[in-house]
Amino acid sequence: MHTELADRFGINYPIFGFTPSQDVAAAISRAGGFGVLGCVRFNDTDELDDALEWMHENTDGRPFGVDVVMPAKIPTEGSKTDLASMIPPEHKAFVERVLDDLGVPPLPNGERVDAGVLGWLHSVARSHVDVAMEHARKYGQIKLIANALGSPPADVIQLAHDNGVLVAALAGAKEHARHHVDAGVDIVIAQGYEGGGHTGEVTSMILWPELVDAVGDEAPVLAAGGVGSGRQMAAAIALGAQGVWMGTYWLTAAEYRLGMEPDAQGPSTVQKALLKATSRDTVRRSIYSGKPARLLKTRWTDAWDAPGAPEALPMPLQNLLVAEAHTRISRADDPDVVAMPAGQIVGRCNEITPVADLIADLVDEYERAVARMNATLTTSV
Amino acid sequence: MHTELADRFGINYPIFGFTPSQDVAAAISRAGGFGVLGCVRFNDTDELDDALEWMHENTDGRPFGVDVVMPAKIPTEGSKTDLASMIPPEHKAFVERVLDDLGVPPLPNGERVDAGVLGWLHSVARSHVDVAMEHARKYGQIKLIANALGSPPADVIQLAHDNGVLVAALAGAKEHARHHVDAGVDIVIAQGYEGGGHTGEVTSMILWPELVDAVGDEAPVLAAGGVGSGRQMAAAIALGAQGVWMGTYWLTAAEYRLGMEPDAQGPSTVQKALLKATSRDTVRRSIYSGKPARLLKTRWTDAWDAPGAPEALPMPLQNLLVAEAHTRISRADDPDVVAMPAGQIVGRCNEITPVADLIADLVDEYERAVARMNATLTTSV
Repeated sequence: MHTELADRFGINYPIFGFTPSQDVAAAISRAGGFGVLGCVRFNDTDELDDALEWMHENTDGRPFGVDVVMPAKIPTEGSKTDLASMIPPEHKAFVERVLDDLGVPPLPNGERVDAGVLGWLHSVARSHVDVAMEHARKYGQIKLIANALGSPPADVIQLAHDNGVLVAALAGAKEHARHHVDAGVDIVIAQGYEGGGHTGEVTSMILWPELVDAVGDEAPVLAAGGVGSGRQMAAAIALGAQGVWMGTYWLTAAEYRLGMEPDAQGPSTVQKALLKATSRDTVRRSIYSGKPARLLKTRWTDAWDAPGAPEALPMPLQNLLVAEAHTRISRADDPDVVAMPAGQIVGRCNEITPVADLIADLVDEYERAVARMNATLTTSV
Repeated sequence: MHTELADRFGINYPIFGFTPSQDVAAAISRAGGFGVLGCVRFNDTDELDDALEWMHENTDGRPFGVDVVMPAKIPTEGSKTDLASMIPPEHKAFVERVLDDLGVPPLPNGERVDAGVLGWLHSVARSHVDVAMEHARKYGQIKLIANALGSPPADVIQLAHDNGVLVAALAGAKEHARHHVDAGVDIVIAQGYEGGGHTGEVTSMILWPELVDAVGDEAPVLAAGGVGSGRQMAAAIALGAQGVWMGTYWLTAAEYRLGMEPDAQGPSTVQKALLKATSRDTVRRSIYSGKPARLLKTRWTDAWDAPGAPEALPMPLQNLLVAEAHTRISRADDPDVVAMPAGQIVGRCNEITPVADLIADLVDEYERAVARMNATLTTSV
């Protein structure tokens, strides 16, 4: 199957896979889709540089992309130390108490506590862009930069275009999509309420065609939020999208090894949590980043829903507040206490599967859905 | 277009239209769809009897259905007077204060205040079933009884089947759908989060295929919540549904005359509110019936969201509490103060359109969507 956008990128299928794992992203591109590496976890630009180099060596020259988390307006964010002083002590005490109640051990003495934080700061996101553009110039494989927070700043859009890289931006409402296109964004990613991570209130069934109509011929729309099968991919195309943007689907890919020791066997702790979750086991809360994002419902999210829990802080303070907690939770290896963005499609993530099989399943089920639809147009028997 | 289920009912298109208006329901059946008359507003069974008689006379012998609001378990509901005594005085005072603030006048002296209430009581819903079954026996046109609250009681299912009437039940989760089928329900109506009226948390994109898989060959699934265009109908079929169940879509039909004087011109007050609403102008709250239901966001729903507003009461107390308020609001004729269930698809309800045109639009756009999908399977250019 193909669409105009797939042809434009020279990929076999219009399947865009967002993932924080370079192994998964490379496998998606190798299998004929388009892997997009999430950069937010790379505090150290050298690490990102290495990851992109590795992707270059493991993608047979096929195109791939990167995803950054960057507000359009550059905030006056100051240093991490300045920001830390803005966090109320009651919030810190709450987090400590909850971790204690949930049996999450502290980090060993002297360990750094800000892992996973800095990608949410504008200055760090900007360094991700610079590294990605360097790679785009060097190998010409990076063909897309996507921004999870909407339109990137104008100079970033210009820089991308200068390097032959298209710009995509997530949108949860018609007004956002129009704004993106007017700002020079090339591709709108319409992310519905059911999606993992940041979402608005309008669901994919409503949002996708609304955004397709809102931007018209000015930009193709990728359908995000709720895609985890070929039938849902067929729904995306039926609703006017030029492809799908999937995130949660890849978290239970066999190639997804984040949070695991190199020689570990079987699913990771997070994967165990994902495998047992149903479509009703997610919540949309601001406790991960400071903006509403859909997360796996666990004892950690329950604690923030309990009476007496504080309100989440605004971005980027909330992420600073919970960064150490996320690291501690990750180390604790308890599938019931996990801090993880996930969409409602997690109910379909029921086994660990290689990326190539996941993509083959999507395409096969897509074709069967189209055949079923054609049958509705034949004379009734 | 057709599906097995459409063929079974002998209708041209698998478009099931739920509406409280007999004019609209009849027009849907005449246009080749399947009109379903919502009974909850009929406190007086003679009125329902007259409405069904009128539908018989205005549907050229085509099939149609009825929709009731009936819990599977018969509650010990007592009389209306007993129930009224269970409503806290603080709730009554809040409602009075809000109506006063919103400039909603009281009813004229001596007028009955319980209009719109009784359909929510089991005894009244049961009388709706009896009237509908009498009509099914008399004319053989009533072919479906749907229950908005899930599986009807076993004897109602038996009674329907004895009269050649299929039973449909709304479901917002896999477990509900399984329960319905095990209870003898013939058709599952999968209603996603974005739908008007009672909904669960799982969106249509996720819920429809999940319920299709959960019930397999045991029952066809109708896709509800989020359908207001042929592209969304195509998505429903792509996701495995045998047809669509639409409610909000018909509220701006030209034939929808509820709440209007017989000789009134132009849209009604409620229609004015619907026409200007976007997909972001709904909220899911328990304030209409006591269970979470999606409503048009207006100054009335805002008042219940304001600090200091009480929690909604359980069903059926909440409906008793707000029944007079709903009547007063309806009389006040203010498009900014409306108490009306509506789905997110309301963003597409932008003009008053005859039912026949609405159905022709759906079918035409459906066919174009299938053609577009077929193009994705041809060799890339």
